[in-house]
Amino acid sequence: MFKTPSIVFLMQCPDQKGLVAAVSGFFYKRGFNILRSQQYTDAARNIYYMRLELDLRHLAMPRLQLEEEFGALAKILNMKWTVDYSDLRPRAAILATKAPHCLYDLLLRRKEGELDCDIPLIVSNHAHLEEAANLFGVPFRCLPVGDDRDAQERRMLKLLKAHHIDLVILARYMQILSKRAIDAYPNRIINIHHAFLPAFQGAYPYRQAYERGVKMIGATAHYATEDLDQGPIIEQDAARVTHEQSPRDLEQIGRDIERVVLARAVKAHLERRVIVSENRVIVF
Amino acid sequence: MFKTPSIVFLMQCPDQKGLVAAVSGFFYKRGFNILRSQQYTDAARNIYYMRLELDLRHLAMPRLQLEEEFGALAKILNMKWTVDYSDLRPRAAILATKAPHCLYDLLLRRKEGELDCDIPLIVSNHAHLEEAANLFGVPFRCLPVGDDRDAQERRMLKLLKAHHIDLVILARYMQILSKRAIDAYPNRIINIHHAFLPAFQGAYPYRQAYERGVKMIGATAHYATEDLDQGPIIEQDAARVTHEQSPRDLEQIGRDIERVVLARAVKAHLERRVIVSENRVIVF
Amino acid sequence: MFKTPSIVFLMQCPDQKGLVAAVSGFFYKRGFNILRSQQYTDAARNIYYMRLELDLRHLAMPRLQLEEEFGALAKILNMKWTVDYSDLRPRAAILATKAPHCLYDLLLRRKEGELDCDIPLIVSNHAHLEEAANLFGVPFRCLPVGDDRDAQERRMLKLLKAHHIDLVILARYMQILSKRAIDAYPNRIINIHHAFLPAFQGAYPYRQAYERGVKMIGATAHYATEDLDQGPIIEQDAARVTHEQSPRDLEQIGRDIERVVLARAVKAHLERRVIVSENRVIVF
Amino acid sequence: MFKTPSIVFLMQCPDQKGLVAAVSGFFYKRGFNILRSQQYTDAARNIYYMRLELDLRHLAMPRLQLEEEFGALAKILNMKWTVDYSDLRPRAAILATKAPHCLYDLLLRRKEGELDCDIPLIVSNHAHLEEAANLFGVPFRCLPVGDDRDAQERRMLKLLKAHHIDLVILARYMQILSKRAIDAYPNRIINIHHAFLPAFQGAYPYRQAYERGVKMIGATAHYATEDLDQGPIIEQDAARVTHEQSPRDLEQIGRDIERVVLARAVKAHLERRVIVSENRVIVF
Repeated sequence: MFKTPSIVFLMQCPDQKGLVAAVSGFFYKRGFNILRSQQYTDAARNIYYMRLELDLRHLAMPRLQLEEEFGALAKILNMKWTVDYSDLRPRAAILATKAPHCLYDLLLRRKEGELDCDIPLIVSNHAHLEEAANLFGVPFRCLPVGDDRDAQERRMLKLLKAHHIDLVILARYMQILSKRAIDAYPNRIINIHHAFLPAFQGAYPYRQAYERGVKMIGATAHYATEDLDQGPIIEQDAARVTHEQSPRDLEQIGRDIERVVLARAVKAHLERRVIVSENRVIVF
Repeated sequence: MFKTPSIVFLMQCPDQKGLVAAVSGFFYKRGFNILRSQQYTDAARNIYYMRLELDLRHLAMPRLQLEEEFGALAKILNMKWTVDYSDLRPRAAILATKAPHCLYDLLLRRKEGELDCDIPLIVSNHAHLEEAANLFGVPFRCLPVGDDRDAQERRMLKLLKAHHIDLVILARYMQILSKRAIDAYPNRIINIHHAFLPAFQGAYPYRQAYERGVKMIGATAHYATEDLDQGPIIEQDAARVTHEQSPRDLEQIGRDIERVVLARAVKAHLERRVIVSENRVIVF
Repeated sequence: MFKTPSIVFLMQCPDQKGLVAAVSGFFYKRGFNILRSQQYTDAARNIYYMRLELDLRHLAMPRLQLEEEFGALAKILNMKWTVDYSDLRPRAAILATKAPHCLYDLLLRRKEGELDCDIPLIVSNHAHLEEAANLFGVPFRCLPVGDDRDAQERRMLKLLKAHHIDLVILARYMQILSKRAIDAYPNRIINIHHAFLPAFQGAYPYRQAYERGVKMIGATAHYATEDLDQGPIIEQDAARVTHEQSPRDLEQIGRDIERVVLARAVKAHLERRVIVSENRVIVF
Repeated sequence: MFKTPSIVFLMQCPDQKGLVAAVSGFFYKRGFNILRSQQYTDAARNIYYMRLELDLRHLAMPRLQLEEEFGALAKILNMKWTVDYSDLRPRAAILATKAPHCLYDLLLRRKEGELDCDIPLIVSNHAHLEEAANLFGVPFRCLPVGDDRDAQERRMLKLLKAHHIDLVILARYMQILSKRAIDAYPNRIINIHHAFLPAFQGAYPYRQAYERGVKMIGATAHYATEDLDQGPIIEQDAARVTHEQSPRDLEQIGRDIERVVLARAVKAHLERRVIVSENRVIVF
């Protein structure tokens, strides 16, 4: 999507007359061409959402000045907003444990240019996936959990900070993050849940699904929040299964869904197509 | 499926050597041609399931005798089994409330020959759908719930009995059935649940789904059991949705899934392709 | 979607700077609130598409004047556009032959309020579906084809004209329309094709699909053009099948897809969410 | 599936009375336990198909003797059949060109134990994917096509033979195989077609799909035959797309479908769940 160098504004504010005119006028006066623009109004809550993609090559003033001037308009409109520039590539860290499927998938998509980000760091509590990291030339850090879970997390957060990480991807990372970690990366930690939420929670979801004889299994990618598995949902998908599939078969099918759902969520986030609004996610 | 007049045996028993040979030998000796045969072994629980469809025109003895002789074999194999003959059409009653989509759908499929059953009775606690019933020429009985819920159910069960009903279809019937009703039709009451189970339970599931920002909605058809919404699952399906869809949109999409899922479940049941085994359903 | 009375503008023009500002400014100055706005830029062809939904209750001038003033702006922008008002309900005619599934489906959705249109006329070349039309209280006209195919079509076009029809829905109407008919309703005749296009064309597609052993079957809704089955695609869907399904099974599954795909296409058209641009369809 | 060491018989023959009894009796008498058994009758062509999975540990005679004795029965029944033993792992070669997604996917699934085969050889006409092959420790041979296409193919066939290859997987191998190659591996070359067949054939299918404004794209895995893209279909899948997706987006979505469809087809083949019958594939 960032083929043309671009600036992306994400906005949310109370719906009001003249909103589009005010915003589009603002950028027109400053010489911008709008590459893409998407809107949505949540009529029930009267909130207006907008994603605006501008041609970065038309920027004729310092970025800071643009942001200050837009900030002044936003204040009038009672608007929350963010801005991103495509020449500043996001830096993503992947946290994993032992399961390789999501990790490989992300690294391969990164390599093929599907995911527009740098991946300067993989962290795991096991050494298991080091080889995979090496294959793709990504630095791998093993931080075993051991007795002091808290100390391990602090070390990890320090690493993330040192690497200037913008996005944390939990690629089947089987550890619970503390409030401290969540707060350090608000709506910037993406988790893949190995089930269709709300659904079988707890251990062995595929065995539960088998025993309950379900006819579909799914996966959910969401931003991590303190209340595990209750975070804003970015993407979901599901596949049909039959009684013939064993729990192991379901797990394999589940893996295929998991990695696709996680990749789509990460892609949407990196392309700045995601606005979180309370517990709902707008994906443009 | 019952194009050729047929006999369908459904069997479940502990897996054991020589099972297929014993069963297929039994029917071969009695001159039968096997039209279809499907098996499944639940390796975890060591249970063997079989569906056998025979050509009815080869039946060269009284039905009772066939059943007695097969019963003797089944006893040796420690087998639970049922038999059905395609010339005895099942009689289904539809219970509805106000929502017409599932009712119309079933009646139309019946009319088009997709559902191989008689539908001699529609019962509702409202008069709302009488017109639809008339359109398709199916007797309609309105039994308002009023003060005495129990009396209404007793009247309904009497009606079902009087009409020799084999299968009860809850086509968005918004009343809870008592243990007595469930027990009267074990694994012969099919309910459509307006959500992907396990999922948003309780009232207004589509509003809940909207507020949670889910990306897929689904529906589940299952046999009714005392523990509401926990019965054996026959069929499920789901569809992708986006933030753009209002709760009302979700409801419309949900209706489309509901009626297809319910119809598929009813069809599978009528074609005797369903074996219930504890809380799992084998759908051949 | 037309809960709030609304005006919908559909626009397409060469992409150019200041477009959104010009259009949104135009409506802001005239006191309008934008209910919904959707844009898309076809970068390859440099065409900009926009759908704008305004609150009709803010209209403070005669409709003709609004259209003249907007026409003047459109001329400057080299824009093709249409406008519709939600208080002028579209009038749809359904053309059918013998297959009832799409007809019932449309009539039921109309009755349930899913399709926001009047349906003052059903035309068929057979008497077969008269009963269905009666059930829903829609006038039915039988125009047998007989020897003079041309005369029959002329009679039909006369009927459509007399009923001020805006949209013609071919609900499995097994007759080919002439250029004259197509030209009378450009991009206003929706056809459902009983296959996933491009795909098995010609007769007995489900038998062809069976013999080829395909694992998925689908359906396509498109605007009718002279070149049969090559018109702009509005909606498609598909379902998985296996070798077990007979041609008759495939047909039943196909019917379920056909009616849902046709209904979605009709709904999108009625809600003015469809822009045709050469042979591509933008569905907002 | 081959958890328990097993023998798999695949059979097809004219449908006839006593078939199941004869076959199951044959194995029962020789002390076998049937692990899985699946049947299908193509009523239109009166052909009976069967897959039988036996517990290898019950084999109490030389394999050759079993096959001879079964061959004698098969002759009586006019049956075509194959037998495979799970302790003889199939050897698959992957042929690729430059696109890495299918290759990585297969290698990763192999590594994770999803695909039960050896992969002793990757052949490509470019050096591009050598690194990927190295990562997974699979020997890689680059055979550039150059001027003499025929010579290159002969070299390749020699390599396949030298490595005792049972299955050839065309993982986006952009070369056409000659009749000689097809004949050397009848129904043992699996190709992934980058479209939903029958569909956009020829070059740039995703651009064609974009320009035609299709709403779904798919992929097809089939056995290679001389008549390119017309071979027996093993597996297909499709995904919804919108006008918003560029040809490049469609390609990315297409890649996800391609690799899953190819993997499922290869898995089915390796698990001996596939019977080819003229141009139809039975996948048990």
